[in-house]
Amino acid sequence: MPIYAPLTAVVFDAYGTLFDVHSVIVALEKLFPGHGSAISHTWRSKQVEYTQLRTLSDRYAPFSIVTRDALRYACAAHGMVLDPSAEDALMCEYERLDAYPEVHRAIERLRGLGLSTAILSNGDPAMLGPAVAHADLAPLLDAVLSVDTVGKYKTAPEAYSLATDRFGCVSERILFVSSNGWDVAGAAWCGFRTCWINRTEAPADQLGVRPHHEGRTLDDVAAFAGVVMRPEFSPHF
Amino acid sequence: MPIYAPLTAVVFDAYGTLFDVHSVIVALEKLFPGHGSAISHTWRSKQVEYTQLRTLSDRYAPFSIVTRDALRYACAAHGMVLDPSAEDALMCEYERLDAYPEVHRAIERLRGLGLSTAILSNGDPAMLGPAVAHADLAPLLDAVLSVDTVGKYKTAPEAYSLATDRFGCVSERILFVSSNGWDVAGAAWCGFRTCWINRTEAPADQLGVRPHHEGRTLDDVAAFAGVVMRPEFSPHF
Repeated sequence: MPIYAPLTAVVFDAYGTLFDVHSVIVALEKLFPGHGSAISHTWRSKQVEYTQLRTLSDRYAPFSIVTRDALRYACAAHGMVLDPSAEDALMCEYERLDAYPEVHRAIERLRGLGLSTAILSNGDPAMLGPAVAHADLAPLLDAVLSVDTVGKYKTAPEAYSLATDRFGCVSERILFVSSNGWDVAGAAWCGFRTCWINRTEAPADQLGVRPHHEGRTLDDVAAFAGVVMRPEFSPHF
Repeated sequence: MPIYAPLTAVVFDAYGTLFDVHSVIVALEKLFPGHGSAISHTWRSKQVEYTQLRTLSDRYAPFSIVTRDALRYACAAHGMVLDPSAEDALMCEYERLDAYPEVHRAIERLRGLGLSTAILSNGDPAMLGPAVAHADLAPLLDAVLSVDTVGKYKTAPEAYSLATDRFGCVSERILFVSSNGWDVAGAAWCGFRTCWINRTEAPADQLGVRPHHEGRTLDDVAAFAGVVMRPEFSPHF
């Protein structure tokens, strides 16, 4: 068991980690019966790909634009015609994604340990703000940080620096939590403590870096952070 | 019809464009009957994802390492056990990928127009060199450029600069050819003329940039470049 410094904050990725991006399947299925799940998965993977490509090529566009672009691609890829009103309706779904059922209790438990909590998301404020409000998460968070501030998506180091800047600490004092393997790798490369929420029992990514902890739900974050916060772990970093 | 400057060179992506990365399916199918195609597609998509993530996070590792990492992920994702000898054998397949059948005649036709020709690839020399030799492409190319020189994968602008540096010209004088939508976007963002070889009739990526030309095979590049090279297109850039 490795020795950790005491934590200052727990910082969560939003999409896929707190919010179930595939809660759009219900709306997609109504529009495109039999294709909702497939379109949703293409939508999500293209959305992530486009954030990474735009950052690599220094062509930032806000997440709301990237998400709309990815939706258009996904519908075309599955041979579906997306009219403008359906497109707008689906984009609205992204402002009221379901929070995973354990989100509130897990964050409350972390706050009960004396930890600060925040979101660090690829979402731009116009998209992320309504989603956070819809899920009633604002009272449980010290900060909602958006990469829109730096104009680079994760896994650019500048994006993760938003968290250390906000809490005024080194990255080792922050536990970064994400369900996205690429996001966990990016944070670990920046020196954060990391917890991978492996909701789908996926294999670990092969990037030469491993999460400090792996869990199935956010309840596992609270359990892990509780261990890290025990006095015998405190001063030995 | 837009007006183009006369071209200096045609620069090709390698994997997926000149070489059929899915020619590994035969070997995969022998090892994992019924799963060859699925593993090959996961292998390729993870390989590309890992190049982009490592570049975003400034964690370059050569393509041979990234390709091996992606293979391990792909086998695990499909529930297959990959022993070390099978892994080595599959990696060797990447050094003797099939060239698409039109590759030689298409490049020869471009050279017949007086154009220089080159490869600009994510592959490191240890991997790319044997593949070029196996396909007997060296006599048809003025240069084989590897991003390994700059330690950043496409779509980082530094990677595309290898082509303009090699031919001593602005990017508008180079026609960049790739079957990968992300690669075409990256090159177009850098100012290259671009031709997307859409071998699978895929929808266009939604990145706010379009290829100058779209074809189904490399034969379409020669036809397009022939039009661009006609005298009436020459001095009006």
